[in-house]
Amino acid sequence: MTCFWGIGIGPGDSELLTLKAVRIIKSLQVLYVPKAHNDNFSFAEKIAAPYFSDNLIIKRRHFPMVNNFSDKQNSWNTIAAEIIDDVHLNQEVGFLTLGDPSVYSTYSYIADLLKKRITVKTVAGISSFSEIAAKLSIPLVLDKEFLEIIPGNADLIKLKQAVDFNDNLIIMKISTNFSKIYHLLQERNLLAKTIIVENAAMQNQSIKTMAQYECDAQLPYFSTAFIKKG
Amino acid sequence: MTCFWGIGIGPGDSELLTLKAVRIIKSLQVLYVPKAHNDNFSFAEKIAAPYFSDNLIIKRRHFPMVNNFSDKQNSWNTIAAEIIDDVHLNQEVGFLTLGDPSVYSTYSYIADLLKKRITVKTVAGISSFSEIAAKLSIPLVLDKEFLEIIPGNADLIKLKQAVDFNDNLIIMKISTNFSKIYHLLQERNLLAKTIIVENAAMQNQSIKTMAQYECDAQLPYFSTAFIKKG
Repeated sequence: MTCFWGIGIGPGDSELLTLKAVRIIKSLQVLYVPKAHNDNFSFAEKIAAPYFSDNLIIKRRHFPMVNNFSDKQNSWNTIAAEIIDDVHLNQEVGFLTLGDPSVYSTYSYIADLLKKRITVKTVAGISSFSEIAAKLSIPLVLDKEFLEIIPGNADLIKLKQAVDFNDNLIIMKISTNFSKIYHLLQERNLLAKTIIVENAAMQNQSIKTMAQYECDAQLPYFSTAFIKKG
Repeated sequence: MTCFWGIGIGPGDSELLTLKAVRIIKSLQVLYVPKAHNDNFSFAEKIAAPYFSDNLIIKRRHFPMVNNFSDKQNSWNTIAAEIIDDVHLNQEVGFLTLGDPSVYSTYSYIADLLKKRITVKTVAGISSFSEIAAKLSIPLVLDKEFLEIIPGNADLIKLKQAVDFNDNLIIMKISTNFSKIYHLLQERNLLAKTIIVENAAMQNQSIKTMAQYECDAQLPYFSTAFIKKG
């Protein structure tokens, strides 16, 4: 029996896949990847390309990044139906996700649609925040400390509470709400204790404190903030 | 110039190391590992053993698991001095950590002692909570949700606040405070929504809901709780 594999490929370096991820990618007959805007290879596809078998069929599909949930759902339903057909044809089918498939990933929605119909298996990946801490050789969380992981588009009141409550915080995709979060952290005197990593583990990675930014800076999509109060 | 490498080896499966971790382990001349209680190989050593070069020198050192911080610090200082000597002898020196070196790891203390004297580099690893979510093919965190990571030995009042505030929570090493946390989650009617994974990714892994435990159950050291309210 073949199945559908969601494969975490880490934050951006082809060496940050696990051996298991590489083994599974090599064993696939069909691979689904997000279609890049400019019709070039997507990030995910570039990172995993060294491990593609010669006869791998790559199906590039459009995953809309819109705010309308039902538009997204329609696309996911179409892609899920295609995946189910492929697995029923006895093919090993995979889907690549940047970072860890369990952390804010479209993969979770697709997996949910598929679970009732076919076997779904997931391979964990290195998240961008693990890679950021490794790159800096500083702990994400230690001893009795707490670590909170928050999306950049979080409600500001909840975000404030989280900032006040925790020792360490990760804000994923901070670009979506940069200036509001900037002002909050400025108020709390935390700008210098906040590290912003743009494009972690990618070739154009940048690491700066938030104090080095203007409050209205435009950041790339893959930008993560790491607030460390201690 | 050689350096000191802190290497995350994932939660317990030799296939869950990254390619980078494997490459670095293979390149080491000296490897420090925690000495197991019974003088057998430690967990970490077993997981990484397939990647040891033939002439690797393994230094098994005792890392005390006591509550007295200064006792621990004395041991760390001794080990750090030894590591500095090895690196000054132009050897590539490594240290293995289970899971991700940035998440509640003794490695962070050692790295901190070494940083002023020698170059320290860290390789990220798959954390137990990423592996748990992958194993179950369920998201740790999605959309606008928050994820809190907490140590089992956290102060109970702070733990209560975190449970009430968050959509998803991971409690690491829950065995240290199992019955108190059990009663808290029982009060909140969350026992059935809490998944306990003992020994994630190890051969003796067990996955149950907290409702399947007695309140005074004795759990293994590597036990993680994943509370998912949604």
